Amino acid sequence: MKISTLKKLFVGSPLATAQARHERLSRTSALAVFSSDALSSVAYATEEILLVLVLAGSAALSFSIPIGIAIALLIAVVVSSYRQTILAYPHGGGAYIVTKDNLGTLPALVAAGALLIDYVLTVAVSVAAGVAAITSAFPVLYDYRVALGVIFIAGIATVNLRGLRESGALFAVPTYLFVVSFAAMLAYGFVRWLSGWEGVPPPAAAVPAEMGQALTIFLVLRAFASGCAALTGVEAVSDGVPAFRSPEARNARIVLAWLGIILVTLFIGITFLAHHYQVVPRTEETVVSQLARLIFGGGLLYYEVQAVTMLILVFAANTAFADFPRLAYFLARDGFIPRQFGTRGDRLVFSNGILILGGLAALLILLFGGATHALIPLYAVGVFVSFTLSQASMVRRWLSRREAGWWWRWMLNAVGAATTGLVMLVIAATKFSHGAWIVVLLIPLLVTLFMMIRRHYADVARQLSLDNYGGPPPIQHSVLVLVGDLHRGVAAALRYAQTLSTSAKAVYVELDPERTQKLEEKWGKFGLGVPLVVLTSPYRSLLTPFLDYINHLLAVGENHVVTIVIPEFVPARWWQHLLHNQTALLIKGALLFRKGVVVVDVPFHLR
Amino acid sequence: MKISTLKKLFVGSPLATAQARHERLSRTSALAVFSSDALSSVAYATEEILLVLVLAGSAALSFSIPIGIAIALLIAVVVSSYRQTILAYPHGGGAYIVTKDNLGTLPALVAAGALLIDYVLTVAVSVAAGVAAITSAFPVLYDYRVALGVIFIAGIATVNLRGLRESGALFAVPTYLFVVSFAAMLAYGFVRWLSGWEGVPPPAAAVPAEMGQALTIFLVLRAFASGCAALTGVEAVSDGVPAFRSPEARNARIVLAWLGIILVTLFIGITFLAHHYQVVPRTEETVVSQLARLIFGGGLLYYEVQAVTMLILVFAANTAFADFPRLAYFLARDGFIPRQFGTRGDRLVFSNGILILGGLAALLILLFGGATHALIPLYAVGVFVSFTLSQASMVRRWLSRREAGWWWRWMLNAVGAATTGLVMLVIAATKFSHGAWIVVLLIPLLVTLFMMIRRHYADVARQLSLDNYGGPPPIQHSVLVLVGDLHRGVAAALRYAQTLSTSAKAVYVELDPERTQKLEEKWGKFGLGVPLVVLTSPYRSLLTPFLDYINHLLAVGENHVVTIVIPEFVPARWWQHLLHNQTALLIKGALLFRKGVVVVDVPFHLR
Repeated sequence: MKISTLKKLFVGSPLATAQARHERLSRTSALAVFSSDALSSVAYATEEILLVLVLAGSAALSFSIPIGIAIALLIAVVVSSYRQTILAYPHGGGAYIVTKDNLGTLPALVAAGALLIDYVLTVAVSVAAGVAAITSAFPVLYDYRVALGVIFIAGIATVNLRGLRESGALFAVPTYLFVVSFAAMLAYGFVRWLSGWEGVPPPAAAVPAEMGQALTIFLVLRAFASGCAALTGVEAVSDGVPAFRSPEARNARIVLAWLGIILVTLFIGITFLAHHYQVVPRTEETVVSQLARLIFGGGLLYYEVQAVTMLILVFAANTAFADFPRLAYFLARDGFIPRQFGTRGDRLVFSNGILILGGLAALLILLFGGATHALIPLYAVGVFVSFTLSQASMVRRWLSRREAGWWWRWMLNAVGAATTGLVMLVIAATKFSHGAWIVVLLIPLLVTLFMMIRRHYADVARQLSLDNYGGPPPIQHSVLVLVGDLHRGVAAALRYAQTLSTSAKAVYVELDPERTQKLEEKWGKFGLGVPLVVLTSPYRSLLTPFLDYINHLLAVGENHVVTIVIPEFVPARWWQHLLHNQTALLIKGALLFRKGVVVVDVPFHLR
Repeated sequence: MKISTLKKLFVGSPLATAQARHERLSRTSALAVFSSDALSSVAYATEEILLVLVLAGSAALSFSIPIGIAIALLIAVVVSSYRQTILAYPHGGGAYIVTKDNLGTLPALVAAGALLIDYVLTVAVSVAAGVAAITSAFPVLYDYRVALGVIFIAGIATVNLRGLRESGALFAVPTYLFVVSFAAMLAYGFVRWLSGWEGVPPPAAAVPAEMGQALTIFLVLRAFASGCAALTGVEAVSDGVPAFRSPEARNARIVLAWLGIILVTLFIGITFLAHHYQVVPRTEETVVSQLARLIFGGGLLYYEVQAVTMLILVFAANTAFADFPRLAYFLARDGFIPRQFGTRGDRLVFSNGILILGGLAALLILLFGGATHALIPLYAVGVFVSFTLSQASMVRRWLSRREAGWWWRWMLNAVGAATTGLVMLVIAATKFSHGAWIVVLLIPLLVTLFMMIRRHYADVARQLSLDNYGGPPPIQHSVLVLVGDLHRGVAAALRYAQTLSTSAKAVYVELDPERTQKLEEKWGKFGLGVPLVVLTSPYRSLLTPFLDYINHLLAVGENHVVTIVIPEFVPARWWQHLLHNQTALLIKGALLFRKGVVVVDVPFHLR
């Protein structure tokens, strides 16, 4: 009772199936809904590049400029490639579906495994970065970052369990506020730079000139790999085409182009300004926070940027709460993960997927101490695996279909697949020892698990199939009531057993001959005519003689089923359970999953 | 399977009831069996006195002499008093039974509660002191004292679960070895003292002259109270009279006198010598260890004393493993604690009592860091409560019976009761804030619990009584099979339901009208003629429509019982359980303890 009340309070009352409806999004709304994940990565991508470069000393930080440009080009390639996917999959082209369609089940499962991992990381990284935005502004909260992260995740999960409509209006506020705030900050920053008016002097570089590592190509590639986190979420538009207003594909392609332009602008802008203002990554304050502080010199505008950063990161985490359960639904439908991920809860959402995602993300926050940079090496591997497979699928598709204009779309996707594939290898190689190995290991493990589950379900379906089935064999049925005494509770169980079978018997295991005699006396009067079988027990074990007796019965016939009726007390208070029914529990434990045995508790309710 | 094999390995094969037999003990054997608990306290009692006195500086340590003499007198009084109890209760006079006999149930429960607590403490204190004997000899083990304590307890509990015969031969070795070793050590110590030959100089007192506390009467009383731990276990002989050879009472009285003499001799001897050799209590070495080292100057004899000390302490802990389950048996028989304490396991021992005692004692060792002196303030309160009640019962008994020679026995018991009662108050008062409050609080809580359990059992017995019982009412029976699909597993459940009732129905909750149609098609062919009831569910809840339907059925008649048959998979491997049966589990949870509802799982075994 209490739990259901709590559930109602937090999750809300059930919704009828008929209440499920679909909102179609305008281009501006769609941009808001589908870009929060991609744009939010601007909040930490530059910092992750600098964090790697700084290992080779502050002089190495200049490399952030060419790396930033390379990532911007990569974004352009991936966006162009995905615009072709939208064209081919107007009903939504998630990597799992597209890959399954064109490359087959195994690659599709690899994509699915990579995506599931990545959704968990999206939540963990976004929330960690969102918390970092807050603790940068209010350093006093820094010590509580893990708790704050877990609270954020719990909050987002709760909202999603209630069933959050992906409404354009809701998303428009944080997304456009973020875009406008960041654009304004960058514009002001550039104006101050170009006009030569630098009111606030940059702080002295807080980093020793040399931190022990040489500026190798490997280190530069690792910095590039870390910055590739900026690309996460770019695929969201192509997944969500059906949510667009008609003409869906055209609108989606336009929105994706916009998204690409905004993303590149903000990312390049922050990277350039961070370099110009000589921002050096620090543990307790994010690069964006430092930059905003330097540009605005603190004050209200600074706090607004931090608040908006936190907000869009929370919304980015939120998108994974729609994506993960949806992918889990597809996998469950195809029998690759447990079926319970395929059913909607009473608020029309896939509750199991939401709970699992929230739980895993919170676990990551706990394990990695709520630090964004600690999670980054795990991130992006999965994204690029799915990018590569999705793009490669499109290459295959254009080749086999050869529709009008196929060759240049094929070209674009081929470039996309090759580029993302190469980046995937770079990320896996350079971040392998920093945590990417976990993901590299986890993806094949997940795929194996998917296959095992699928095989199990197929196996069960075959065993349950009604093809060539002659119907269940007739049952030879014995009903036994296990008694330890005769009282009203036992009498009620005897009466019940008689309704099951007219030949029901009672079985008593004798531990003390004196008690047997007393029982037999009572039995004559209140035994309802049910025959009483007394089993002797030289070792005082209740179980062994009884099990022997059951085995003996089962050995008689082929299709023999023994139903064991156990009178069980239902006390009025929970603690009183400890004072009863140990025997019933013991018997049930011993007979659990025994073939040919059915155990029935007949409750006797105490006042 | 595995668990039963493990159990056999550690606990042994079951023993037949006929194998229970009673060994009668000679006086020397009986002394060995019944004195280990009492004598073992010599290993720590003096130390506990010194530990309190040293708080007032090393000069205060001389007070150990008068305190030791007072405790020796107390032992004499208690022994004389218990010798009268033996006379009156030749069949065993435990405090619970004697008090129940003479003062009634409530005081008896107080004695029982006090004793149960004390048995747990006997195990914890004895094992902690035994470990201290070892770590004094081998200081390298000091850091592992908690783990060692828990391992000792686990070992003793295992031996007792196998069923340890209280055999005289087994106990004779450690007990007499202890008595002889300690007597020899003390004799040698006194010889060296009196002959003025002091080869080894006593170490400089390691204690500052003043430790901040004044030598108040309160402190002296607290030291006395701590030393009273020496009396624990003195009652063992009077509990065990029936184990003696005939004439039981006479032999028991002689043995108790011997026990008293040996106990006083060893205790006084150690206390005097510890004072003479200026032993000062230290954290990492026991007083007995220091004394043995000073007397023997280290070497083989020193190690022998430590080994023998450890051995008798382990045997002392072991006696509680016979006493606790036996008292629990009496309490369970009278309905004051759960019935499962009243049944012997398959090795003829009260396994539940042994497990509970071992678990609680190990918990104490963990909570109190394995330190004897930390546990001492909790100890002895319980013993003296039971001493006082037991003695007071005897006073009442002599008064009411007035047998030949009653008046001087009455006198002895009255002195005993008054003295132990006074000591009980002193112990509770002086050690209250150091931990005795826990016991003072726990005893009434236990007594309340005993009464609640007794009332519950009495209440249940009344509700179950066959007096004025007209037999159970006839049952109106409905059998429902809850189905989510139709396959071989469901068909088997339908067949089973048909054997329970010819009017069995199947119930299906419709979540998707399309699937209903498919189901109905299959039903015509394989439904075995069982009617299919389809319930609609606008909120996609499986449970709500089904529960509504059951409520509707139950509302029809007075004595309606609804049996719900749930087809359940039994997969071949444990992890596959996660992939099935969530619905069955949900239904069972929702219907658990519902009045008028019986849930039956029909297992379908997968290969």
